[in-house]
Amino acid sequence: MSLIVHKYGGTSMGSVERIRNVAKRVAKWHAAGHRVVVVPSAMSGETNRLLGLAKDLSPDADGRELDMIAATGEQASSGLLAIALQAQGLKARSYAGWQVPVRTDSAFTKARITSIDDQRIRADLDAGMVVVVTGFQGVDDEGHITTLGRGGSDTSAVAIAAALKADECLIYTDVDGVYTTDPRVEPDARRLSVISFEEMLEMASMGSKVLQIRSVEFAGKYRVPTRVLSSLTDPDMPLAEEMKSGTLITFEEDEKMEAAVVSGIAFSRDEAKITLLGVPDKPGIAYSILGQVAEANIDVDMILQNQSVDGTTDFSFTVHRNEFARTLAVINDKISASVNPRDVLSDDKVAKVSIVGIGMRSHAGVASLMFKTLAEEGINIQMITTSEIKTSVVISDKYMELAVRALHKAFGLEIAAVKV
Amino acid sequence: MSLIVHKYGGTSMGSVERIRNVAKRVAKWHAAGHRVVVVPSAMSGETNRLLGLAKDLSPDADGRELDMIAATGEQASSGLLAIALQAQGLKARSYAGWQVPVRTDSAFTKARITSIDDQRIRADLDAGMVVVVTGFQGVDDEGHITTLGRGGSDTSAVAIAAALKADECLIYTDVDGVYTTDPRVEPDARRLSVISFEEMLEMASMGSKVLQIRSVEFAGKYRVPTRVLSSLTDPDMPLAEEMKSGTLITFEEDEKMEAAVVSGIAFSRDEAKITLLGVPDKPGIAYSILGQVAEANIDVDMILQNQSVDGTTDFSFTVHRNEFARTLAVINDKISASVNPRDVLSDDKVAKVSIVGIGMRSHAGVASLMFKTLAEEGINIQMITTSEIKTSVVISDKYMELAVRALHKAFGLEIAAVKV
Repeated sequence: MSLIVHKYGGTSMGSVERIRNVAKRVAKWHAAGHRVVVVPSAMSGETNRLLGLAKDLSPDADGRELDMIAATGEQASSGLLAIALQAQGLKARSYAGWQVPVRTDSAFTKARITSIDDQRIRADLDAGMVVVVTGFQGVDDEGHITTLGRGGSDTSAVAIAAALKADECLIYTDVDGVYTTDPRVEPDARRLSVISFEEMLEMASMGSKVLQIRSVEFAGKYRVPTRVLSSLTDPDMPLAEEMKSGTLITFEEDEKMEAAVVSGIAFSRDEAKITLLGVPDKPGIAYSILGQVAEANIDVDMILQNQSVDGTTDFSFTVHRNEFARTLAVINDKISASVNPRDVLSDDKVAKVSIVGIGMRSHAGVASLMFKTLAEEGINIQMITTSEIKTSVVISDKYMELAVRALHKAFGLEIAAVKV
Repeated sequence: MSLIVHKYGGTSMGSVERIRNVAKRVAKWHAAGHRVVVVPSAMSGETNRLLGLAKDLSPDADGRELDMIAATGEQASSGLLAIALQAQGLKARSYAGWQVPVRTDSAFTKARITSIDDQRIRADLDAGMVVVVTGFQGVDDEGHITTLGRGGSDTSAVAIAAALKADECLIYTDVDGVYTTDPRVEPDARRLSVISFEEMLEMASMGSKVLQIRSVEFAGKYRVPTRVLSSLTDPDMPLAEEMKSGTLITFEEDEKMEAAVVSGIAFSRDEAKITLLGVPDKPGIAYSILGQVAEANIDVDMILQNQSVDGTTDFSFTVHRNEFARTLAVINDKISASVNPRDVLSDDKVAKVSIVGIGMRSHAGVASLMFKTLAEEGINIQMITTSEIKTSVVISDKYMELAVRALHKAFGLEIAAVKV
């Protein structure tokens, strides 16, 4: 008998009929003897509807009140799911984050979970119940409702699985797993049956929007076996089959398993890059630039600073394209005067493409195959950054699809690797 | 500087534009130096939408989960109102019932408030804030969310006003006060500028659906001066004028004030009556009948038992017409065998009409004028009950409007009484 956490996204909870299907699926797991905790998102469209009303009232509304409003979506869907489970003949009970409680810091609209009390959930599981816990939300030390930001229900589910030391956390979503790259760009993209935690982290952060990145961090920190699988399958499909579907995120590097060098190609379409030329190469320069950008609540993605020449250096970073204008304004208003760059170059027509693979650690030449492949397609590389298991390049956005397809082929990702 | 509680119904909160108007009105009160606590209902239609989803999933859903779902409507509208108030330049903060906390018993879907902690609200008022508190809901001792039942936001507002010892509780609604009777039935119906608590209690319970009856009980118990007034007026109307609009429910019997004999005509259109003929007249008989009815969660309105003859008596009561079939089933299945009535008579085409007035206490002949008036119109009285300040009759429902109009005229209600 295992303890399993299920998470269902907004699409899976999007109608009475779909909620009923979720209940049927949970009932199947329960009937097989598993203890189940379910974490639902709000019904699809609900969070947008609520926040749209708030935005109509005030374009920059107070975060605390936005959380008060947005948190209702999951509370309603959790109650509805509990009723659907009861209609399946199960004992079920729903809890809002504050009732568990799921404690967070006070960073409204993007709070972080600090602790989860498992007592209440455990007591209900011991009493034979299915427990439904709202995704996306918690409560801070002053008793204010907080939300975790978009996609936060994934994080809720993994965090609850960690707190309960669950045997597995199943993330049911509208895709059937993690692919070597986006199948809309490369039709030969292949579903991975297993992916390492580190690779998933890089894939998630790079725009393979299957899982919220913080949920992957949580999964890694607490070593929660987490599986991404489809909620669109027949809820009556055999359990043994369902238990092996999707993509499992693992933490064990199996010695016998021959790791693929590269597991996938991630990309991010809507990037903008900014370079400050000839800024003084002295301690604190990065902070004087990025501190101001962070202050304006702009998320920075890639950051590059190269070797200085003659006491000055060129400092580059990328932001989401939507933040491009605001970022330039911050540079003009708050950075240029103190940092005094020789020039500011910018381009909001760029994309980022990355190859991700735990096998890169032990295989030289992976990056050079990437660069060779792009060169053969005539694609100019504008920026390069690397981490242990990832190499990213910034290129003109018009070449993005071409680059993804060429790299997918060059690394042989359309063929199932030996490890699968 | 007064402490004022405002309550706004679902219609007043029904759109972004209307929420903005509510905020403007509150801002006006705040600007005049008043400390304001606002209790909003859910946006109109929202509670029905949410409970409709629940009903689609299960026709008899668990009360605890229904409350979990329904409570979200007020939480969202409270957050939205706080944002609208902030957009008016005010400091504002919203609280769900559990955050205050508003403590209730555990009777899900119809909980009763047991206590309200005023500390958090007071601290925010002291900090210059407008405080928004969700209507309709609270939290029980185990931390489960509860709701107070339909119209419960009125009760929330009055209870919060009582806890805060507020100077006045203003119930903003889509009518401009309490009338001598329903103007849709009697066009000459007149708005009362003052009504006694006892009269309001009788009017509210009799179908003048301006205020939830429990809110009036609360107002009486804690002597909260409560005013019913329109939310549809221009929010910028002069404050002095607004402070005198609507109908004030009072607790002081002003000696100098010449009380009208009858203040209003209440009626209830959708009644059904049931009579058990010839049941044994012995202790416990009323309980053996009504206990079973209550068990089935059917609300009984009028109850009549007359003098017994030959050891048996006739026992009558009325229920809402929607409960008629269920009530007859309860009698057949659970009551007839033990109580053994000679016959069961029933009629679901009846209405109840009542005259209400604190002046009845000291004026003989009020009831006889009522009976004379009905007789002159050829209306047969089927049942009569009286209380100190009310006389009610059950008549055929087809005569209801005629009875209301005739009584309104007979008691001179179209003319403002001396006391106004």
